Amino acid sequence: MNIADLEKSLSSDYLKNEMVGLMARLYPICRSITGKGFRESLNIIDDYVSLSVVEVPTGTDVYDWKVPKEWNIKDAYVKNSKGKRVIDFQKSNLHVVGYSVPIHKTVSLSELKQHLITLPEHPDWIPYRTSYYKEHWGFCMSYNEMMQLEEDDYEVHIDSELKEGHLTYGECYLKGQTSKEILLSCHACHPSLCNDNVSGMVLVALLGKYLRSINNYYSIRIIIIPATIGAITWLAMNEGCVTKIKHGLVVSCVGDPGKTTYKRSRIGNAEIDRAVEHVLKHSGDEYHIMNFSPYGYDERQFCSPGFNLPVGSLQRTPYGRYPEYHTSADNCDFVRPEYLYDSFKKYLSVINVLENNRTYLNTNPKCEPQLGKRGLYDSVGGQSDKIIDQMAILWVLNYSDGTHTLLDIAEKSGMEFCLVSDAANALIKNRLIVASEETR
Amino acid sequence: MNIADLEKSLSSDYLKNEMVGLMARLYPICRSITGKGFRESLNIIDDYVSLSVVEVPTGTDVYDWKVPKEWNIKDAYVKNSKGKRVIDFQKSNLHVVGYSVPIHKTVSLSELKQHLITLPEHPDWIPYRTSYYKEHWGFCMSYNEMMQLEEDDYEVHIDSELKEGHLTYGECYLKGQTSKEILLSCHACHPSLCNDNVSGMVLVALLGKYLRSINNYYSIRIIIIPATIGAITWLAMNEGCVTKIKHGLVVSCVGDPGKTTYKRSRIGNAEIDRAVEHVLKHSGDEYHIMNFSPYGYDERQFCSPGFNLPVGSLQRTPYGRYPEYHTSADNCDFVRPEYLYDSFKKYLSVINVLENNRTYLNTNPKCEPQLGKRGLYDSVGGQSDKIIDQMAILWVLNYSDGTHTLLDIAEKSGMEFCLVSDAANALIKNRLIVASEETR
Amino acid sequence: MNIADLEKSLSSDYLKNEMVGLMARLYPICRSITGKGFRESLNIIDDYVSLSVVEVPTGTDVYDWKVPKEWNIKDAYVKNSKGKRVIDFQKSNLHVVGYSVPIHKTVSLSELKQHLITLPEHPDWIPYRTSYYKEHWGFCMSYNEMMQLEEDDYEVHIDSELKEGHLTYGECYLKGQTSKEILLSCHACHPSLCNDNVSGMVLVALLGKYLRSINNYYSIRIIIIPATIGAITWLAMNEGCVTKIKHGLVVSCVGDPGKTTYKRSRIGNAEIDRAVEHVLKHSGDEYHIMNFSPYGYDERQFCSPGFNLPVGSLQRTPYGRYPEYHTSADNCDFVRPEYLYDSFKKYLSVINVLENNRTYLNTNPKCEPQLGKRGLYDSVGGQSDKIIDQMAILWVLNYSDGTHTLLDIAEKSGMEFCLVSDAANALIKNRLIVASEETR
Repeated sequence: MNIADLEKSLSSDYLKNEMVGLMARLYPICRSITGKGFRESLNIIDDYVSLSVVEVPTGTDVYDWKVPKEWNIKDAYVKNSKGKRVIDFQKSNLHVVGYSVPIHKTVSLSELKQHLITLPEHPDWIPYRTSYYKEHWGFCMSYNEMMQLEEDDYEVHIDSELKEGHLTYGECYLKGQTSKEILLSCHACHPSLCNDNVSGMVLVALLGKYLRSINNYYSIRIIIIPATIGAITWLAMNEGCVTKIKHGLVVSCVGDPGKTTYKRSRIGNAEIDRAVEHVLKHSGDEYHIMNFSPYGYDERQFCSPGFNLPVGSLQRTPYGRYPEYHTSADNCDFVRPEYLYDSFKKYLSVINVLENNRTYLNTNPKCEPQLGKRGLYDSVGGQSDKIIDQMAILWVLNYSDGTHTLLDIAEKSGMEFCLVSDAANALIKNRLIVASEETR
Repeated sequence: MNIADLEKSLSSDYLKNEMVGLMARLYPICRSITGKGFRESLNIIDDYVSLSVVEVPTGTDVYDWKVPKEWNIKDAYVKNSKGKRVIDFQKSNLHVVGYSVPIHKTVSLSELKQHLITLPEHPDWIPYRTSYYKEHWGFCMSYNEMMQLEEDDYEVHIDSELKEGHLTYGECYLKGQTSKEILLSCHACHPSLCNDNVSGMVLVALLGKYLRSINNYYSIRIIIIPATIGAITWLAMNEGCVTKIKHGLVVSCVGDPGKTTYKRSRIGNAEIDRAVEHVLKHSGDEYHIMNFSPYGYDERQFCSPGFNLPVGSLQRTPYGRYPEYHTSADNCDFVRPEYLYDSFKKYLSVINVLENNRTYLNTNPKCEPQLGKRGLYDSVGGQSDKIIDQMAILWVLNYSDGTHTLLDIAEKSGMEFCLVSDAANALIKNRLIVASEETR
Repeated sequence: MNIADLEKSLSSDYLKNEMVGLMARLYPICRSITGKGFRESLNIIDDYVSLSVVEVPTGTDVYDWKVPKEWNIKDAYVKNSKGKRVIDFQKSNLHVVGYSVPIHKTVSLSELKQHLITLPEHPDWIPYRTSYYKEHWGFCMSYNEMMQLEEDDYEVHIDSELKEGHLTYGECYLKGQTSKEILLSCHACHPSLCNDNVSGMVLVALLGKYLRSINNYYSIRIIIIPATIGAITWLAMNEGCVTKIKHGLVVSCVGDPGKTTYKRSRIGNAEIDRAVEHVLKHSGDEYHIMNFSPYGYDERQFCSPGFNLPVGSLQRTPYGRYPEYHTSADNCDFVRPEYLYDSFKKYLSVINVLENNRTYLNTNPKCEPQLGKRGLYDSVGGQSDKIIDQMAILWVLNYSDGTHTLLDIAEKSGMEFCLVSDAANALIKNRLIVASEETR
């Protein structure tokens, strides 16, 4: 089976249900850049795609950084003097500032407020905050609830642990015909935030599940890592192998209703950039293209100047551009299965272009070959899809000169890649073109 | 005499009359890709420009193709039971599908209709069809006449011959100072279709007639060939010489009222492409530029990847984009002498640019030379054409650095080529520039 | 002190007063391409910036030209028969055609009129004319005054001298850390024309005065020369040294109310071109960019093909595009100190960009360095200028790969150069980037 066949065989309803199911399992978990929540998430994803789990000890040097202590949390609350939990970690894991150190004491309202973070512009939402590299404790809550707190003595309790341990990441390798790789990188270090982290995990888990059965040219490597420190750690552990990465995408924010956005790799016109842009241009949907900037998610590390990998970022509304971003409103209502499914299909189409994008040589480069005697010339005409096919045949013949890939030809002709690829297949069968020396 | 002088000396009325006269002689002939009609057409053109006629035997291998059998036709008709010719080849040679095999039998209306081709969207026009590579017979007629056919027994007669013979083409070579060539290629394989084939023949015949007397740098080769198979045959016969072709144009559809269209060579920015676009930009007329596509006329063969010759296509309304295309409405009323004449002048202007487009070296490259002491500085000023001349002088001086051709300078300055070329001539006389080593 | 400090320390009121003062001293002098007026002007400028004065003898060969005779004038008038001066050089030095030969005779009105030049489209303005290379005499006057002249005998007297002497120019060299130069070239050969020549002199005099105290990387060379023949003479005298000129600007027409205009060097994308365009883009003011053309002021010589120096022209309304150009209306009312001051600041900003535009190497090119542990990561956020700083830090880190200058990074990021340069300085202090091998 190839990807085009896979695309045809997929049941959108079944797949959307799978997506919703996995999302519902992953959403409630309290993840951070280290700790049990991260491991639990990998464990769930392993039901869909087989993962190797790597544990890197606290203190390991990774380039300019060190792997931090491992953080775990059991419970946290703020109780008023009547014993009522006015802030309760059990209700939302966003209530605790990530990496808060353990605390148990009684404080006045004014002291408490020094440790409270709210979002006055969205007074019903709980913000999401962390303090990975500075020891600190704090709570996040909605502005409206904060305003209702009265003068009182408050019992503050964070039952967390910050100590030597490990940073964990998961990796899935789908072996293809060659060791050349397509990298899909997804961060999984946020607690109950659905578009920003859960949607990416769902997408890569199901891409992995379905691509497993495909006989790909490229090997596919999926990594599920904590953002920033995880990408840095992964690169430090795998520095020798990154030249195998021929194309890559950072997967995040793929389930919101916004239009699809592609942020180019630092290279800017790498094959992955051109493939994604081709797919989006022919998708019929609105989309947005951004140049690389050294701000965002883990493309920052993959595209740092010492690596400069051909890794872009295919998302919907990008990092920080939707109001729900990093708040309790980024929940399972904000992410819709139809958008997740649409993103899934676009990823598949991109991989399909990469898989089939080759350079061919016309075996009769002087003048056109006689198509009629090979049944490739539609002598009747009239059916518009047939006519397009024939145009694709002429384009592939004319530009199969060893310097144009099929994607080049698709772009030059204005045709969709699959039409050009179908024409190429017909010409290969008739020995009118042959694959040129391995150039990809 | 040079081309600029020729342009000035031409009488537009005389030339238009010549064009109309030649068009009237060529239009009625029943041409096809082989046969007597093609030879008769070459014979007429030979009155204007001396042609070598080449006969290539049926069965000759030409790349992936074989020269087909020769087709000739004397008469054809469909008679009803009362003996009336309801379709009559003598009235229009479009009535017979080109390359129809001989037939003589009586058929019912329904059987007849299986061999009739009409054009319901233009019910009074006869369509033009051929069946070169699949043995077949058929008639074309107007939809309205077809609708008047009643149930009857019809005598069908096509008095044609399809047998071993030759493919014929004509060639005219105007020797220039060098063996470098400008190729003008014109197909002449259509019967009574005026814009699509007759207009091109008229244009190249008269270009040949008038350019004969010019002392050109380039040799000019005019070929009059059947479309597709003729271009393929010509290339197969002349493969060793095509490197002499420095610039070329496929000539067709040059007499209709549409705006001038230039389809670029596959190279896209060859000198011929830039010269034509310059002429059109300064023509004051609307025009349209198209990128190369592997569909159209014989540029398909000249620009196949094994040749990739700098051959564009300078036409008016292109191939297939006017409703009269390949119908009886493409007649001598559709082609007007003013448009043919306009196309003629544009071809001349393009050849003039190519002839004069050279690279020069400023002999005083450090600072400007003193123009005043050589009478090249207009100390009075005031007359705007003089001022423009002086600007052209400054542009040519500044950019005659061995890397800019006069066409480059015209494009950079926004001036018309002839102004720049005149300035260059004044500077050559004053030894302020000299032609750089042969670079064209 | 560096240029950024200088910019902060400047008092705009003080500087505008200085500008007005110098302008008032220079405006009344009758300058020409040679002679005492030119020397007197250099003498005044020497009060602001130390000038070397060079005298080149009449007849000296300078490329295709010869240094002309020196011209001086004491007085000139036209008197009517009643002894009244109807034209009086003492009232305006524009009244005499520059380089007029001495004359003293009585002429009729009609003979006089053959030597009068007026400007009917601006009937109250006196035009400015010269006749350097053709011996001639003439007067310029307003059209309205000319119309009032009656039939009479007129005493014509021009008390001038045209004889062997010198062409004079002035030069100021501000030594920097290296012998690489920024050239500022200003013509000073016009009599009482304020925007077209006085404004440029004022600007370079004050730039020279204030830049004297700066420890620049580049040496700065200011030349004050007669237009055309002066540039040609200077280049002829200094041909061996022009390779030191890394960037240059022709300074003229810098005090009118029009928007700032930059005319690119012939190279078109030289560092000077990019630096000026960057400064204008971020100035918040309207501006206009022109490509090089071989017409205008002394960029014609610096950008002649034998030199092709990176010299642009930063002006306000360019050469010949304002009605006051080369008339008595180009006076001290037309040039305003606020525009002169604005031009001054733009020149300073351009020099600042050139001074600081270097290429750096990220010392931690693999992944991002940990900014937090160096105090470069704003963990609090909120203040928008801080956030921009941090973005600039990320941009500089990511693109300090040895192939991007800070100006490249500013352009890529859309940030103003000074933000990028500040970020680079912070990173240098932290040894996160180092200057790459000398590439400028």
